[in-house]
Amino acid sequence: MSEAAGILARLPRTVEWRDGDLYLLDQTRLPHEVVIERQDSAGQVFAAIRTLKVRGAPAIGVAAAYGLCVALRPFRSGTVAAFRDAIDAEATSLEAARPTAVNLAWALRRMRARAVNTKSTTAADLFDALLDEALHIHDEDQRLCLGIGLAGAGLIAAGSGVLTHCNAGALCATGIGTATAPMYIAHERGVPFRVYADETRPLLQGARLTAWELQRAGIDVTLITDSMAASTMGAGLVDVVITGADRVARNGDAANKVGTLGLAILARHFGIPLYIAAPSSTLDFDCLTGADIPIEHRAPEEVLEFGGVRTAPAGLKARNPAFDVTPHAFIAGIVTERGIVRPPFDVSLSALFGRDDHA
Amino acid sequence: MSEAAGILARLPRTVEWRDGDLYLLDQTRLPHEVVIERQDSAGQVFAAIRTLKVRGAPAIGVAAAYGLCVALRPFRSGTVAAFRDAIDAEATSLEAARPTAVNLAWALRRMRARAVNTKSTTAADLFDALLDEALHIHDEDQRLCLGIGLAGAGLIAAGSGVLTHCNAGALCATGIGTATAPMYIAHERGVPFRVYADETRPLLQGARLTAWELQRAGIDVTLITDSMAASTMGAGLVDVVITGADRVARNGDAANKVGTLGLAILARHFGIPLYIAAPSSTLDFDCLTGADIPIEHRAPEEVLEFGGVRTAPAGLKARNPAFDVTPHAFIAGIVTERGIVRPPFDVSLSALFGRDDHA
Repeated sequence: MSEAAGILARLPRTVEWRDGDLYLLDQTRLPHEVVIERQDSAGQVFAAIRTLKVRGAPAIGVAAAYGLCVALRPFRSGTVAAFRDAIDAEATSLEAARPTAVNLAWALRRMRARAVNTKSTTAADLFDALLDEALHIHDEDQRLCLGIGLAGAGLIAAGSGVLTHCNAGALCATGIGTATAPMYIAHERGVPFRVYADETRPLLQGARLTAWELQRAGIDVTLITDSMAASTMGAGLVDVVITGADRVARNGDAANKVGTLGLAILARHFGIPLYIAAPSSTLDFDCLTGADIPIEHRAPEEVLEFGGVRTAPAGLKARNPAFDVTPHAFIAGIVTERGIVRPPFDVSLSALFGRDDHA
Repeated sequence: MSEAAGILARLPRTVEWRDGDLYLLDQTRLPHEVVIERQDSAGQVFAAIRTLKVRGAPAIGVAAAYGLCVALRPFRSGTVAAFRDAIDAEATSLEAARPTAVNLAWALRRMRARAVNTKSTTAADLFDALLDEALHIHDEDQRLCLGIGLAGAGLIAAGSGVLTHCNAGALCATGIGTATAPMYIAHERGVPFRVYADETRPLLQGARLTAWELQRAGIDVTLITDSMAASTMGAGLVDVVITGADRVARNGDAANKVGTLGLAILARHFGIPLYIAAPSSTLDFDCLTGADIPIEHRAPEEVLEFGGVRTAPAGLKARNPAFDVTPHAFIAGIVTERGIVRPPFDVSLSALFGRDDHA
């Protein structure tokens, strides 16, 4: 990971294990304050995940794995039996922090499995094995992001403009992010380019998080409202669109933050390629097409308010789909840790990630 | 104007002359407070226009005409010569409130011309003539809006969904608005339909103003963020898009609030017709195409902030074009006070509004 080492040193550390302690960056206070909090108890980690101080599926998974270690520290000097009981209790408790976050449950399952497969005679040894597993989960996440960055960096030509939406950045993972990974690698290689960040209403992940982390890394970033994407493309300022994805179906249809579908249609109109950057863990071969992907509708208040301040009249209705689905025909390629997958996706995704047809 | 009488009685009065006094609705306090302020001096009217308490080109024109009357009231009992001097001084002063607002200068020019053409022997008579002119300007604005409403109401079928952007509503004019005019007439006729209002970042005219006035009129309105238009269209909820325009070129290209171009491209993709509702005063035959329409770029703070609260990191750049231009090929029709104009617009607009070719 030599190429990423320099970049990682300059990126925000969303999750860090240092000198036996877990530190989390409080993303709810970005971009105005950079506050890194040491996690001294399982309850504190639980609250950090629940209140979105740490967010983004990959980052949540890593935080939960380390969080279990924090929870188990008090049991290191006890009996093995008591330690194993504590693993069950604490993992069950942490898992409830955000029941719908797939990576949270996945990381805790991996931690439990490691404990089951470890035949230690002392609680301290068992703790060391679990911490080792957490460090592995963390390392793997960084490698996935790096792989996406190396695969996609060539999409960003010198002097080009890149448009992105929401935050599929370092802040949603523990490495260099997904959609941002090609940008960080290209920047590290000295390629000059500009990024246009959609502010991404209603929750403003683009303005608060993506703009913040790219600016901090020294990348030329300009904020636009979501409604300015067409104008910006029409002015000839955008050469490529790169976004993340929350789930990719077997045929390449991709669910991502609401607004991505509109960007894809605009990009097609203006002859600009749109790439989805996503690790293979985002692929869901059980969804044959995007129609199988459930779309979460969130509270109308997010649309009716802005940062807790009411903007719309009392009693107004609002629609608030959190995601939309971009049909595969609008996607030039899917940037994965193993390379860029090109259409036809129903063939190429299965070929690269090696699962046979599901009946 | 019988059909509009009932509607007008239920709409907000942005500008009203009643019992010898001018009243303005303070739009900066919408949607949270409905505050109607009596204007007791020229300075107060100047400030109301400058600080956007009254906004929208048609409403500003009417407010300025009445505002000149407010300014001239103290001179009614003086000499004719002093009154005429006051007209010049006060009109020049009012015109500076918003130098770029075309209707402001236009209305004050009409008031001056009326004074020049009035051979009164007393200042009181001259004042009455100017008040009569202001009442005419007001009445004409209401008739233009009504004409657009009657021409466009048939575009809204029973059970249909209408998407609109920004506020081309009653609040930008003194009648039933432009883009909203067909909605108010259809609603008055008992046609059931739903409106989706884009919130319209950065200044939220959709959330604060359009949603407020439609809801107040009893029309079924749902707020969405600008980024949700594609998702809403894709869900089959939108049958027609109707927006206003700030300027329409001879070939039908239309400049409107930024985001309209994106909507037009999305509407085309989903097979939904987009109509521009605009009075003939919006036509600019000196602009042969949209490329001749200058686009105002506003302060980056509007994008970096939300309602005065900073959302983006310090030092960030932002792009803030206030308008974009929708090419005529994406416009199904232009709804004017004389009827719906259809493509080819270079022929149909000239035919209906009767100006020959400009060299």
